[in-house]
Amino acid sequence: MTAPWRGFASDNYAGPHPEVLAAVASAGAGHAPAYGHDEVTARLADLVRAEFGPSACVFPVFNGTGGNVVALAALCRQWDAVVCAETAHVHVDEGGAPETIAGLKLWTVPTPDGKLTPALVDTQAWGFDDVHRARPAVVTITQSTELGTVYTPAEIAALADHVHARGMRLHVDGARLANAAAALGTSLADITSRAGVDAVTFGGTKNGALGAEAVIVFDPEVAEAVRRLRKTFGQLPSKMRLVSAQLVALLSDDLWRRNAAHANAMAARLEAAVRRVPGVTISRPAQANALFAVLPPAVTTRLLSRHRFYIWNQFTGEVRWMCSWDTTPEDIDAFAADVAREAAARAS
Amino acid sequence: MTAPWRGFASDNYAGPHPEVLAAVASAGAGHAPAYGHDEVTARLADLVRAEFGPSACVFPVFNGTGGNVVALAALCRQWDAVVCAETAHVHVDEGGAPETIAGLKLWTVPTPDGKLTPALVDTQAWGFDDVHRARPAVVTITQSTELGTVYTPAEIAALADHVHARGMRLHVDGARLANAAAALGTSLADITSRAGVDAVTFGGTKNGALGAEAVIVFDPEVAEAVRRLRKTFGQLPSKMRLVSAQLVALLSDDLWRRNAAHANAMAARLEAAVRRVPGVTISRPAQANALFAVLPPAVTTRLLSRHRFYIWNQFTGEVRWMCSWDTTPEDIDAFAADVAREAAARAS
Amino acid sequence: MTAPWRGFASDNYAGPHPEVLAAVASAGAGHAPAYGHDEVTARLADLVRAEFGPSACVFPVFNGTGGNVVALAALCRQWDAVVCAETAHVHVDEGGAPETIAGLKLWTVPTPDGKLTPALVDTQAWGFDDVHRARPAVVTITQSTELGTVYTPAEIAALADHVHARGMRLHVDGARLANAAAALGTSLADITSRAGVDAVTFGGTKNGALGAEAVIVFDPEVAEAVRRLRKTFGQLPSKMRLVSAQLVALLSDDLWRRNAAHANAMAARLEAAVRRVPGVTISRPAQANALFAVLPPAVTTRLLSRHRFYIWNQFTGEVRWMCSWDTTPEDIDAFAADVAREAAARAS
Amino acid sequence: MTAPWRGFASDNYAGPHPEVLAAVASAGAGHAPAYGHDEVTARLADLVRAEFGPSACVFPVFNGTGGNVVALAALCRQWDAVVCAETAHVHVDEGGAPETIAGLKLWTVPTPDGKLTPALVDTQAWGFDDVHRARPAVVTITQSTELGTVYTPAEIAALADHVHARGMRLHVDGARLANAAAALGTSLADITSRAGVDAVTFGGTKNGALGAEAVIVFDPEVAEAVRRLRKTFGQLPSKMRLVSAQLVALLSDDLWRRNAAHANAMAARLEAAVRRVPGVTISRPAQANALFAVLPPAVTTRLLSRHRFYIWNQFTGEVRWMCSWDTTPEDIDAFAADVAREAAARAS
Repeated sequence: MTAPWRGFASDNYAGPHPEVLAAVASAGAGHAPAYGHDEVTARLADLVRAEFGPSACVFPVFNGTGGNVVALAALCRQWDAVVCAETAHVHVDEGGAPETIAGLKLWTVPTPDGKLTPALVDTQAWGFDDVHRARPAVVTITQSTELGTVYTPAEIAALADHVHARGMRLHVDGARLANAAAALGTSLADITSRAGVDAVTFGGTKNGALGAEAVIVFDPEVAEAVRRLRKTFGQLPSKMRLVSAQLVALLSDDLWRRNAAHANAMAARLEAAVRRVPGVTISRPAQANALFAVLPPAVTTRLLSRHRFYIWNQFTGEVRWMCSWDTTPEDIDAFAADVAREAAARAS
Repeated sequence: MTAPWRGFASDNYAGPHPEVLAAVASAGAGHAPAYGHDEVTARLADLVRAEFGPSACVFPVFNGTGGNVVALAALCRQWDAVVCAETAHVHVDEGGAPETIAGLKLWTVPTPDGKLTPALVDTQAWGFDDVHRARPAVVTITQSTELGTVYTPAEIAALADHVHARGMRLHVDGARLANAAAALGTSLADITSRAGVDAVTFGGTKNGALGAEAVIVFDPEVAEAVRRLRKTFGQLPSKMRLVSAQLVALLSDDLWRRNAAHANAMAARLEAAVRRVPGVTISRPAQANALFAVLPPAVTTRLLSRHRFYIWNQFTGEVRWMCSWDTTPEDIDAFAADVAREAAARAS
Repeated sequence: MTAPWRGFASDNYAGPHPEVLAAVASAGAGHAPAYGHDEVTARLADLVRAEFGPSACVFPVFNGTGGNVVALAALCRQWDAVVCAETAHVHVDEGGAPETIAGLKLWTVPTPDGKLTPALVDTQAWGFDDVHRARPAVVTITQSTELGTVYTPAEIAALADHVHARGMRLHVDGARLANAAAALGTSLADITSRAGVDAVTFGGTKNGALGAEAVIVFDPEVAEAVRRLRKTFGQLPSKMRLVSAQLVALLSDDLWRRNAAHANAMAARLEAAVRRVPGVTISRPAQANALFAVLPPAVTTRLLSRHRFYIWNQFTGEVRWMCSWDTTPEDIDAFAADVAREAAARAS
Repeated sequence: MTAPWRGFASDNYAGPHPEVLAAVASAGAGHAPAYGHDEVTARLADLVRAEFGPSACVFPVFNGTGGNVVALAALCRQWDAVVCAETAHVHVDEGGAPETIAGLKLWTVPTPDGKLTPALVDTQAWGFDDVHRARPAVVTITQSTELGTVYTPAEIAALADHVHARGMRLHVDGARLANAAAALGTSLADITSRAGVDAVTFGGTKNGALGAEAVIVFDPEVAEAVRRLRKTFGQLPSKMRLVSAQLVALLSDDLWRRNAAHANAMAARLEAAVRRVPGVTISRPAQANALFAVLPPAVTTRLLSRHRFYIWNQFTGEVRWMCSWDTTPEDIDAFAADVAREAAARAS
């Protein structure tokens, strides 16, 4: 791929942000103890406490699948199950990792918009004492969701209260947590620790890192489980400082928010540009950095000959356009123009 | 840590090599498809085929624990077991990952020097048809070993023949495969594919990467298992090109060999410098980049107040000194002088 | 419980059939090799081949959960998934055993009547090559289903053809296979091997055994996997002859069919007796030995003070009444009279 | 096999004791709630509390492998490991069940006689805080051991104290616990709860049951874990009363002790009978119901043409002769005479 090419398939098509690269280069000078006993990781712990609250314990890991499995298993015993939306990444896109690595069952819930509610949770959160039914011990939500929607702080707090009242705990798959906080105008704590969340997988990769996520928990006993499982599940980087440095960069000078807000703005720009294109139906509001639309199949086919994006649902013709920290207004305008052109060609 | 500090605890205390950093920065420009469908990963596949033979299939992963578990599980069914040396990293240093992630049993074998032989393998490779005994399906060796020793190509070929004759397969944990090949003066293929090895975990991290290993296999059916398990076991990087770029850098212009040969030379220099120090007993030959010695405990204690290295065996007083790609002759000479000084202080 | 008490909660509330007890007592005389190398188990193998076809390999196990997990895992690699109805026992009633023991993901499908069809299978049987989606490798159906319905031989054959055409395999959870065959008037082979089924968990316990099920497969490679997994998953009885004897008794003189037909007839008798009771709605046809009905909650409460049965769905008020090999016409008539009495009391 | 045949291969070659069979037949009359909510299981709980102490919680399971895995997993988190003798059944004879079902690593210890001691435990019980080393959380011992030896109450108490002081817990694989208690002349509590044991797998099968073992624990939190895992690991009998009845019979009128003492006496009789046979070397004292001897290979071969027993170690020529509850003095005398005859034939 030549450098200026930019697609709309996923925010993981983007490369690392220059500030992240610079931080890694700087952190890599000289020797440092491995496995997190280094000064960069200590700096990260400070930044995470500042951002997520004083009880936050941070555990850098390699990727989202790893982070989610470590976090969920740390909140569960082997016989437990996890309640999630039917569209949850842990369910549909992690190759069965929760089941295979951690032996966890998922109780899935159909949702209209990728978001769980207390009432939806209750469709699966029952039978806690029945050994025949894998015990629902954790509810996991994705923020922003796989459908581009965003939970408000109040919605998360309501879920946390509801879940805690039933003896369960709340995990947030925050692969795009930054996009949600930027969209809401909140801090990262507002939609996690302050709302009662028990564990977060905080995503750096899609936000401009090379490859860095972090499991963040607030209870010392859970933290010890995370510490153990991170190693046993193959998610403990030996040259940890190089992973930590990426997260330090994102948490410095609000880089995470700058990157996320930009990506969100690009999705909004795209929505505005195609909203009135005949033949294009915006199927879900662009609350964060993703836009979903339904296109005539022929339009999709022609667009895919020149652009990269995902057909989200081949039965309905819904497509997903994802913006990233490096998407430019020019990218959006050119793409929107192409969408309009193809839609018009189809209509004529 | 200030930049010039360098320890002897592990080669993973070293940072990334500048050529690796440059390759990552270059690969990160612009957008590219995720999960390995990119040009850098294609380039890596070419380099691996050139280095390991035309049937080699390469699967970049995050770390050694992950790579080993993916490789071993790909060679096994769930009821199978793996024969390894009692000192093997997969047994003693991976937090139970093979057992917990993949459900694999390890049949361990005491060895004098960390190396398996056909006769040693046979102490555990029996009872293949007995359902009560987890079937020994794979033998895994480490090259260079955890005790700093190196298998010759002939030794590996003898193991491979022996293992294959019993219906088993041979895996190499090559966290320091480069050091072994550099020490032997062979190609990487000479000690893997050409010797009959079925699967390799090829280490980049200790050789100068930020964090990059690769599972390399030579059979299409095993490759398909690796492809699946890499995802399911949480070892599939989304921004793969940034991991692949590290391995491309190491496999370009013989950087892997330059780095490994340098580290080996530093260990040899250290061995030469301390060999005749009274009170210091070289306990294992420095065949690669590690040197083991037995010191009086008081000497060890004083050295550890200023230097970083591992007490390998607290019962015998054996210590491990590991050299890396960036260890300098000055580091060695200063450290050796300190060893001699402390040993003399103790003796006086 | 005094002897004559009989409930309608489950067919596993019934004790063993006298012919089964006699067979166990007889098989237990003297010594015999353990783990299946005995004459009773050899006799079972003959009977199973006679009943299920010459390629049938039988593996007695302790219970249905164990049998299902062994069978499914034998058909899968660790990254695979199993497609099942949302109401499947393996999904809702096995404490997460498939996920926890075998690491298998379940792809669930809502159904109107507990039965999968080719079209329903296709809602989950896709994405076979995508590593992000746990590969659908097996479809499992329950015969008779958890909702008391029965697949015809033609329906099973259509599923088998459909599944095989997609490279998958078909498993039958036959906890009540005998009831289905008795209801259909077919042989056991007609609804398994002859219909293209790849693996069966054949239930003896609910059919009159003390506790005996069998995994039956038709492919030597799968049989070897079952042989291994039965031991590794804790399902290999040491005094196997005593388990085999139970299955031998059921497969002798058509005891399995006599028991099943009787239980089915009792369910039909119950259906006939309550069908016209005002306030009682038969919610699902009694195709085998279960009857489902919707009752006013107050009626259910009063009945439960004197009888044992399950509230199937607390939201709808649906209850399940299950008949067993030892349910008597008098049991049915007395219970039906009580239902009528309570329903009338409620109405008045 | 004709009824009077009796072998010396294993005590699981024996059938059920008549009192056990009668108890099962009696318990099987009429209907009873499934899964342990029945009167027979309640009676078992009373008997177990009387025998093992008032805090004992009993969970019947199908077999020893299942019981051991349930008990060990209940005492562990997923990242934990279990310390055991190299000869432990859980290590060498359970098809990798602890690793595959529960993901547990075993840290094995060579022993001279199958028995662990505090000092031997310490060879593996270290590194508790190191995430790289699977945490040793449980020590499991076998009573009587796989080598026919017996731990005294004082030895067990010393192990329990030692283990508890390190934050670990002690499990007893009691497949032949009855034989040990009978040999020692103690109660079952004396060698378990009173000695500080945390969990027991209490064996009924080899003691005269059809197939019944029980996990017995003394801590409510562990009991809850056992309750869950028994189901999830496929070890929850639906017709529980029929399993419980077997254990009730063994715990009634000291049947367990009568059966065990008899088997022990037969082993002692055999030892006395062959001790002075030239060419036969008793290799291990018959402390319970097993006798180990070294024979010339030709003698072993000829004996195996007419008798069933195990070659324990093909390298040393050691064989194992196991006695059971139904071994008769005539069996012993005839077999001993045959041993003497063959040994003499060899010598002549």
